[in-house]
Amino acid sequence: MNKRSVINLLGRIILILAGAMLLPALVSLIYKEPRIALIFLLTSVGSVIVGTVAMLCTGGLRLGEKHIFAREGFMIVGLAWVTMTLIGAIPFAVSGEVKNYIDAVFETASGFSTTGATIIADVEALSHGIQFWRSLTHWIGGMGVLTLLMALAPTDQDSGRAMHILRAEMPGPVVGKLVPRIRRTAVVLYSMYIFLTALETVLLCFGGMTFYEGIIHAMSTAGTGGFGIYNSSVGEFSPYIQWVITAFMLLFSLNFTLYYLAVVGKIKEALSSRELWLFIGIYVVGTAVITFNIRGMFGSFGDALRTAAFESAAFASTTGFGTANPNLWPTLSKAILILFMLIGGCAGSTAGGLKLSRVMLMCKYAKKNLKDTFRPRSVNVVMHEGRRVDNETSHGAVAYLVIYVLILAATILLISFEPFDFERLFTSAISCLNNIGPTFSSAVVEPGFTDFSPFSKVVLSIAMLLGRLELYPVLFIFTPSAWTDKNRVHTHR
Amino acid sequence: MNKRSVINLLGRIILILAGAMLLPALVSLIYKEPRIALIFLLTSVGSVIVGTVAMLCTGGLRLGEKHIFAREGFMIVGLAWVTMTLIGAIPFAVSGEVKNYIDAVFETASGFSTTGATIIADVEALSHGIQFWRSLTHWIGGMGVLTLLMALAPTDQDSGRAMHILRAEMPGPVVGKLVPRIRRTAVVLYSMYIFLTALETVLLCFGGMTFYEGIIHAMSTAGTGGFGIYNSSVGEFSPYIQWVITAFMLLFSLNFTLYYLAVVGKIKEALSSRELWLFIGIYVVGTAVITFNIRGMFGSFGDALRTAAFESAAFASTTGFGTANPNLWPTLSKAILILFMLIGGCAGSTAGGLKLSRVMLMCKYAKKNLKDTFRPRSVNVVMHEGRRVDNETSHGAVAYLVIYVLILAATILLISFEPFDFERLFTSAISCLNNIGPTFSSAVVEPGFTDFSPFSKVVLSIAMLLGRLELYPVLFIFTPSAWTDKNRVHTHR
Repeated sequence: MNKRSVINLLGRIILILAGAMLLPALVSLIYKEPRIALIFLLTSVGSVIVGTVAMLCTGGLRLGEKHIFAREGFMIVGLAWVTMTLIGAIPFAVSGEVKNYIDAVFETASGFSTTGATIIADVEALSHGIQFWRSLTHWIGGMGVLTLLMALAPTDQDSGRAMHILRAEMPGPVVGKLVPRIRRTAVVLYSMYIFLTALETVLLCFGGMTFYEGIIHAMSTAGTGGFGIYNSSVGEFSPYIQWVITAFMLLFSLNFTLYYLAVVGKIKEALSSRELWLFIGIYVVGTAVITFNIRGMFGSFGDALRTAAFESAAFASTTGFGTANPNLWPTLSKAILILFMLIGGCAGSTAGGLKLSRVMLMCKYAKKNLKDTFRPRSVNVVMHEGRRVDNETSHGAVAYLVIYVLILAATILLISFEPFDFERLFTSAISCLNNIGPTFSSAVVEPGFTDFSPFSKVVLSIAMLLGRLELYPVLFIFTPSAWTDKNRVHTHR
Repeated sequence: MNKRSVINLLGRIILILAGAMLLPALVSLIYKEPRIALIFLLTSVGSVIVGTVAMLCTGGLRLGEKHIFAREGFMIVGLAWVTMTLIGAIPFAVSGEVKNYIDAVFETASGFSTTGATIIADVEALSHGIQFWRSLTHWIGGMGVLTLLMALAPTDQDSGRAMHILRAEMPGPVVGKLVPRIRRTAVVLYSMYIFLTALETVLLCFGGMTFYEGIIHAMSTAGTGGFGIYNSSVGEFSPYIQWVITAFMLLFSLNFTLYYLAVVGKIKEALSSRELWLFIGIYVVGTAVITFNIRGMFGSFGDALRTAAFESAAFASTTGFGTANPNLWPTLSKAILILFMLIGGCAGSTAGGLKLSRVMLMCKYAKKNLKDTFRPRSVNVVMHEGRRVDNETSHGAVAYLVIYVLILAATILLISFEPFDFERLFTSAISCLNNIGPTFSSAVVEPGFTDFSPFSKVVLSIAMLLGRLELYPVLFIFTPSAWTDKNRVHTHR
């Protein structure tokens, strides 16, 4: 473990976070909330000091990524997200708008992980600065702060080493050798992310939202998080706005690699993605079935379709916005929504869940295993997106499910001393681990996370980060041997 | 696919079933139920005719297992269990004690698969013959009818080919090269099974049960099924009887290979099983925690301990007997019980669930995957029971989980048009697929399976057989290509 590199990069992350906090400070000033503005400013200044010290003590800006291998990549990403959560929680707690620091950590973990679970009962009572910061954590968490760092970093990071970091932060099983030049990838990813967010903001404002409302909702959609500023989520907005948000929830659930391909002119290649078409297909069929299933509950077919399309997109993208209460829907519709939220979005998107690519790989792996079992002498190969999948990728997707199930079981056990029924614990754990946000419960209407104990809130905060970073980086920082070099022959390439 | 061999063996299975039906016929005669006796007798005679015709048309007794490979093994086991279920359901339906044939099929599938889920509201109203047949299906299903066939078969089955059949029917991931002589294995397994069942019967009668009560409960315990003859399950029996049943539920959850080893004098080898000690360890710790957790609900510590021990054993062995209503227990206790029932018993036992060995393999696989990911240059090996696990076994356990999750999702979707809440559908599907029996629901007290639609009952019946046969044989008979030889180069050894 190269600790200097790790600390140096952590310092840079803290500096980025310090910069990000100037935005809510500005918002607070605009809305005449000097106390909130001061809190963000002071937290920012404190972060600048800590970040600068960390950087200067470990080589400053000159330090490259020469010593970053897979282990350092996991360590940096894992620690960076924990650090961001701990620092990002400060304004929530200090402002007093969140009861205590543990609650603030939960809210921040929920924000950065784009989960959207909240411990705040009345979001309309929050100050503008805090509201903005909540949505900004979604936006930063969606694409990832280390990806942002890569985009801003000096050019020596094109060495290829930084791939280990990008790989550890990007969601999905098949992040790959698409672009050898890391910095260019990161810049392109963030440019498209900013462009889509801006486009949504404009379209929302066009539909009657104020600029503030527009940017808040656009940031929360972009991260597929779900923090809003109204207690009724987006249920009070016009049909036009609901359709815009539906469309963008879906757009942010697609693999960003496809946008990259489209931008560089390889549109045909982008459209050949099987995951893309399967995602659209499942979404359309699911929405159609739900519309048919719930049409009796709505005045017109259009209302039923709009609500079904919105909720399907909200669940498939794990955004967690709502325009209706699906708890009251027939079980068939609920089962489809639950399936949507377990699968989640495409690989390489900001959406949570298992990711469609991974589910496809699992199904193919299962099929191969059945063939191998039934016809032991046949040779069966797993194909994905037109290419033969090597055993490593295929086993990776399957191992992910195993680890996921084990962590889910551990999470439920750890919070099971709470005096709630099993269903609530189960849905809360799934909701956090899959970065969904609202718990989906058939017995009770949305109890939220307010009344969990501090211990459970910490457990669920870790679960949210585990879910966002797809388990490995967070597991890694909890591995004792990760912190020592003892048992390891140092390898160089 | 060698259809002659498959049909020939199916004929033999039907003959065994015909023989088994003479027992409830005898019970009916003893209890002066001539109509029920006649129904069993006629079903038996009909089965003898069908079975004999099937055998004689395909080579009679002379046909060996020369042409039985893995595919034939899966096909025979899959078809045999479906056939047994369809024939075994006849007496239930014809007697009128079960409403219709679909319900009867559900009850029989639940019996043979040792699930113990029932559509009968008042089991005390059943005739003795039908009560006995219910428990006998558990007993036959526990060790497996094909294993019985092997035990009874002529000696040319020692060729080793029959291993494919035994392997497809036995639960657990590591059934193996223990005994090269199949027939001897089958005889030893059934001898121990009969011995333990008889021992339990004696001990139960010693505690005040009638012989009829004793044998019924012993058979249901042996198969880890859970069908009883009282509406209060075994809650009304004395503490002694509850302790005896607790002990035997645990004994039948252990790997029968260990008993075999003990019988042939290799006691040290039997005691070196890690799965055995882990099972005992988990059971003891879980029981202790539950006892501590529920002690306030009982008059004495002894009552709390006995109830905790009984329920833990009932869930871990997936037997489904009950002495209390764990729905009313604290969530921690419920979470432990749910964990018990998901894990299930040891490999090679009559218990359901994922099997502890498989869970151990999954955890080791997950650990290896993490090590491989964090230290890409290290070589990591999965060890199990002191031996290096080859990739095939390891992937098999993992693939099992993937297929299991996919089938669980499919089962829930197929029954999700029912007007029940999601939790009930979820627990019903898990209960059937894991061969547990009673649904464990926190919102409602045991609604049972009576009010599911006929379609859902068929789906759940298939799920129960899938669970008992550990997915593969039942999946195989639903694979279209299994029925044709077209795409296959015939392989000979």
